[in-house]
Amino acid sequence: MRKIKLTKGFLKYALGSCLIECGNTKVICAVSMEETVPSFLKGKGKGWITAEYGMLPASTQQRNAREASKGRLTGRTQEIQRLIGRSLRAVVDLEKLGERTFWIDADVLQADGGTRTASVTGGFVALAQACERLIAKGILAGNPIRDYVAATSVGLVDGKLCLDLCYKEDSRAEVDMNVIMTGSGRFVEVQGTAEGRAFNDRELASMLALAKKGIRKLIGEQKKAVKLPLK
Amino acid sequence: MRKIKLTKGFLKYALGSCLIECGNTKVICAVSMEETVPSFLKGKGKGWITAEYGMLPASTQQRNAREASKGRLTGRTQEIQRLIGRSLRAVVDLEKLGERTFWIDADVLQADGGTRTASVTGGFVALAQACERLIAKGILAGNPIRDYVAATSVGLVDGKLCLDLCYKEDSRAEVDMNVIMTGSGRFVEVQGTAEGRAFNDRELASMLALAKKGIRKLIGEQKKAVKLPLK
Amino acid sequence: MRKIKLTKGFLKYALGSCLIECGNTKVICAVSMEETVPSFLKGKGKGWITAEYGMLPASTQQRNAREASKGRLTGRTQEIQRLIGRSLRAVVDLEKLGERTFWIDADVLQADGGTRTASVTGGFVALAQACERLIAKGILAGNPIRDYVAATSVGLVDGKLCLDLCYKEDSRAEVDMNVIMTGSGRFVEVQGTAEGRAFNDRELASMLALAKKGIRKLIGEQKKAVKLPLK
Amino acid sequence: MRKIKLTKGFLKYALGSCLIECGNTKVICAVSMEETVPSFLKGKGKGWITAEYGMLPASTQQRNAREASKGRLTGRTQEIQRLIGRSLRAVVDLEKLGERTFWIDADVLQADGGTRTASVTGGFVALAQACERLIAKGILAGNPIRDYVAATSVGLVDGKLCLDLCYKEDSRAEVDMNVIMTGSGRFVEVQGTAEGRAFNDRELASMLALAKKGIRKLIGEQKKAVKLPLK
Amino acid sequence: MRKIKLTKGFLKYALGSCLIECGNTKVICAVSMEETVPSFLKGKGKGWITAEYGMLPASTQQRNAREASKGRLTGRTQEIQRLIGRSLRAVVDLEKLGERTFWIDADVLQADGGTRTASVTGGFVALAQACERLIAKGILAGNPIRDYVAATSVGLVDGKLCLDLCYKEDSRAEVDMNVIMTGSGRFVEVQGTAEGRAFNDRELASMLALAKKGIRKLIGEQKKAVKLPLK
Amino acid sequence: MRKIKLTKGFLKYALGSCLIECGNTKVICAVSMEETVPSFLKGKGKGWITAEYGMLPASTQQRNAREASKGRLTGRTQEIQRLIGRSLRAVVDLEKLGERTFWIDADVLQADGGTRTASVTGGFVALAQACERLIAKGILAGNPIRDYVAATSVGLVDGKLCLDLCYKEDSRAEVDMNVIMTGSGRFVEVQGTAEGRAFNDRELASMLALAKKGIRKLIGEQKKAVKLPLK
Repeated sequence: MRKIKLTKGFLKYALGSCLIECGNTKVICAVSMEETVPSFLKGKGKGWITAEYGMLPASTQQRNAREASKGRLTGRTQEIQRLIGRSLRAVVDLEKLGERTFWIDADVLQADGGTRTASVTGGFVALAQACERLIAKGILAGNPIRDYVAATSVGLVDGKLCLDLCYKEDSRAEVDMNVIMTGSGRFVEVQGTAEGRAFNDRELASMLALAKKGIRKLIGEQKKAVKLPLK
Repeated sequence: MRKIKLTKGFLKYALGSCLIECGNTKVICAVSMEETVPSFLKGKGKGWITAEYGMLPASTQQRNAREASKGRLTGRTQEIQRLIGRSLRAVVDLEKLGERTFWIDADVLQADGGTRTASVTGGFVALAQACERLIAKGILAGNPIRDYVAATSVGLVDGKLCLDLCYKEDSRAEVDMNVIMTGSGRFVEVQGTAEGRAFNDRELASMLALAKKGIRKLIGEQKKAVKLPLK
Repeated sequence: MRKIKLTKGFLKYALGSCLIECGNTKVICAVSMEETVPSFLKGKGKGWITAEYGMLPASTQQRNAREASKGRLTGRTQEIQRLIGRSLRAVVDLEKLGERTFWIDADVLQADGGTRTASVTGGFVALAQACERLIAKGILAGNPIRDYVAATSVGLVDGKLCLDLCYKEDSRAEVDMNVIMTGSGRFVEVQGTAEGRAFNDRELASMLALAKKGIRKLIGEQKKAVKLPLK
Repeated sequence: MRKIKLTKGFLKYALGSCLIECGNTKVICAVSMEETVPSFLKGKGKGWITAEYGMLPASTQQRNAREASKGRLTGRTQEIQRLIGRSLRAVVDLEKLGERTFWIDADVLQADGGTRTASVTGGFVALAQACERLIAKGILAGNPIRDYVAATSVGLVDGKLCLDLCYKEDSRAEVDMNVIMTGSGRFVEVQGTAEGRAFNDRELASMLALAKKGIRKLIGEQKKAVKLPLK
Repeated sequence: MRKIKLTKGFLKYALGSCLIECGNTKVICAVSMEETVPSFLKGKGKGWITAEYGMLPASTQQRNAREASKGRLTGRTQEIQRLIGRSLRAVVDLEKLGERTFWIDADVLQADGGTRTASVTGGFVALAQACERLIAKGILAGNPIRDYVAATSVGLVDGKLCLDLCYKEDSRAEVDMNVIMTGSGRFVEVQGTAEGRAFNDRELASMLALAKKGIRKLIGEQKKAVKLPLK
Repeated sequence: MRKIKLTKGFLKYALGSCLIECGNTKVICAVSMEETVPSFLKGKGKGWITAEYGMLPASTQQRNAREASKGRLTGRTQEIQRLIGRSLRAVVDLEKLGERTFWIDADVLQADGGTRTASVTGGFVALAQACERLIAKGILAGNPIRDYVAATSVGLVDGKLCLDLCYKEDSRAEVDMNVIMTGSGRFVEVQGTAEGRAFNDRELASMLALAKKGIRKLIGEQKKAVKLPLK
């Protein structure tokens, strides 16, 4: 597993923020709040958490074209955005947010694999900082966060189990799995994909076990930055 | 599990096609071929399989706006398109396709849950029909399909295991999992998502076991429509 | 004229629906209702009927690219959508709909010429079914449909008059004309276009006479499916 | 019929141009040439004529939003563009154009009804001027224009026949018909639409007769500006 | 400096309009009014002036593609639109407009350089005409226009100072500067750009002096068309 | 003038990069190279420099919507992109780049005014680093950079001259001017805009003098990071 570093409060103007570094992968996660909810939640006394994801064009070894210039988001970006939002909603009591939307922006400065899982892990810290501040100001009455949540990838590379895949490993992996887990060790999301060859039950079990080990370590880092329950 | 019906050759002009019905869910899967490949494959002697997915506006209980009129695909649509393409590529020898692109179009006539998994299961039959015809005409030298592939959903609904979720079950499920498996019983894709509460290892294992049972039945139906190896 | 078949209620969840088959051309027409009207009708106590049209990518001999993926509707699609809406509005008393919008969705499963005229003929049946159901439920106070309406094409192909053109005839026609007529034999729309050579009064008159004959037959089929006045 | 005025060569840089004024309606028609054809004509030794249509935002009594700012063409605009192109192609020998595309741009300065028919009538003059110049320069070997073509509208307004409808008449018309006819009196396009009530054969015949009278007058004006055969 | 001609009231339906001709450059400027303001001004008792700019496709020597067809505005167009709006707002008392938006539409009929500066100079006249009419009708209580405003370009072409650059000069200029100035001789906008080589203080001063001379002449022409203060 | 800090080589994978900090404003500038040129330069033996600009959604005090999600660039973004590209091209010998495109990506992490001028100043350093590396590798034969270039803003705030405006000053400024100057003290771009009131010659002269002072200091910082001539 690569070295991880979480810098809470990396941005001055965001309500909450975190720079997460996993080896050479660096992602800025930021939280903004809006006093409104999407139309399907209007009048239900609940809040919402939604995420947007982007990569700086120069974050990768080959420049990747700016989605703002192309005028449309790729399928990959949309998939990642939905994943981040779903993962964070899974550990938050939406009623306690009030009728507000929390935007999680994950922007990749440098990409060496694992940007989507880093966005979940770092996004949690940014969201927790935002909630700490809102509780301190009396805007939130109580703590809406129920548990930690973090994510990592595992895979089979050249037939061997591998944790926290960097770009080079990821592009050669036969199987690639993203796992998102809470502090209490329960799964929020499990996404295993055969790239080269299909996998069997035993391989699935080994990958899950390794992923859990990695996530426990990531949550250990989160605990240094954020103490639950928030108050 | 709901009653399944596969109608191979449902469309007259498509190279391959299949109407798949799972209870009230009905999806037309069609295959078209193009004598070109995406630019990243040019000159590599390999083919490609890509998928597009759409829903008729009146396929659902509430009319859902036509994506062609909105001018952009939703994130959900793109996710499903990528999933279908990836699943079918996993059982095909792309070299044997030659430098050609196979388009899988999955269009939902009626939606009662499980449209993405039905698209994979029916898409396989349509693709197999297309290959049968191309082999018969001598356009393909040999059989490119290595194994069957089918998909189903499982979930936890009100705390109980549930196979092949209909819309009503799906919208109440605490955990929702899509599983895609080959004829030899290996996984191509496993996507479990906690909607309401996170799930543990034991629940994951039970869901996988139930999904495998369901998929074996689906592959049984595919075998009535398509005989492997194709020739 | 090709064999016609109307299957009322083809879709389970739509308010009204009809599968229309004219030879190899197959179009699903569906009706949905929305409790709102476009802004130019707000507060006028009238309803609106609008149509959308699409083709499945594999409905034609050459796959035609999905408009949702291209992100814009072609001019042809927009022309057809406007034509269907206008034709059905011509036989409906919009005041009797209340402030509601009726969406007519015409989706082509298989295209062998005449999809736009089939959409009008089948759209009428779907709309009538929707109105029957709304009257039965007491949502509509009275019958809003004043007359039948159906459409066909005529043309000059190799100098000869031709009714209900299939794709092959249509692509070779020197003149192509779409005619839309009510049950009482009055025109709602007449669109004659010289593709190869201009046409004279006499040719125009012969084409109109032939079209009327064809439409009377189509309305005969509609009468088997729908009895006017609705109640 | 309103007073008509054709100013050939209104624009300095266009290959051909014409300002057409019909009462208060004013449209600039311009022709540009490109040494290429659309892909479906590549290598066939034929040219193409295509049209684009736009309205200045301040051309109407209520400002109409600029389509360039909205980012998409309305259905009405696309319908008109297709109509203009089709009408001019009907009197031109496309082989004699060589592999070239002729763009007809019709831009409405002031709109008081009848802009689409004025675009056809004025577009013909602009195209003829372009061809005159190309013949003079030896770029075109021979005259590609076979006949005059002009267009007008007729309608039933308050039950009375009406020629060349202005905006006020057009918006009250029960039936509205656009007729496009050649110098030899043959139809290129006939489009009659019931707005308020359907029309019968006799009304159709009267409208056509009146339209022919109007178009003969328009072609009389064209003859003052352009002499056929061009040389 | 090229010959200038201002035709106030060129369009019949616009609230204010002006055809401005500078040599071969011809731009129609038109003003429309809307009883609403952008959201950032709602409830502040102030009005707004905004501009849109377009070129007829055939206005240039090479046809330039219609932005409505491309579906997006170029950066150049947006820059010009922002410049025109800013320049006119600089001489208007926005409070005196009431909560209304004034749209300035500048559409280029013929382009021989200097279309953006002509749009400002002609836009002023169109706006003044609109205000005259609104004052006459009692819709505006008092005169909102504080001063004249006009614009011209200067540049260094082959090392020599040059005023009011035509297209040919502009495309060879080493330095190109647009200057916008009020009747009282104060600058509203100064935009100098080195195209070929950077420029020094002395060159900047000479260009500004020449521009001022040109603008005084343009304002002289405006004074023939519009008398300030308006009443 | 605010404290400035230039961190050359901030990004690992970019060919050249620089994090520029001016007080609380932080912009990442990165350079990528592509072995191709825009079509208007094909075959001319020259290279091109183009820029793209973006802001992280959470870089500002109010979250600003992601342009990639809106699907179009604002006018402001396009104006800035054009300015950055033009400014850097002004000090580079494009022939010496060969037929290559250099992309300058300026991405704002934190915005407190002056992001466009910081993008020019930091973009220069990133471009110089890219050139240093290409010269070292022998990809560029000689030094293409002729001079330093940097940018700052000046303005009149409450009637007083002000250098390097922060967001608060900028939003209250009556006049706002961006100046871009080379190491030899010549102007590349001068853009002065009256926001509240027009300005006279004397005020223009004072602003220019102050801007020059500021830019000389910025170029002093650049010289610590980059030594010209490059080799």
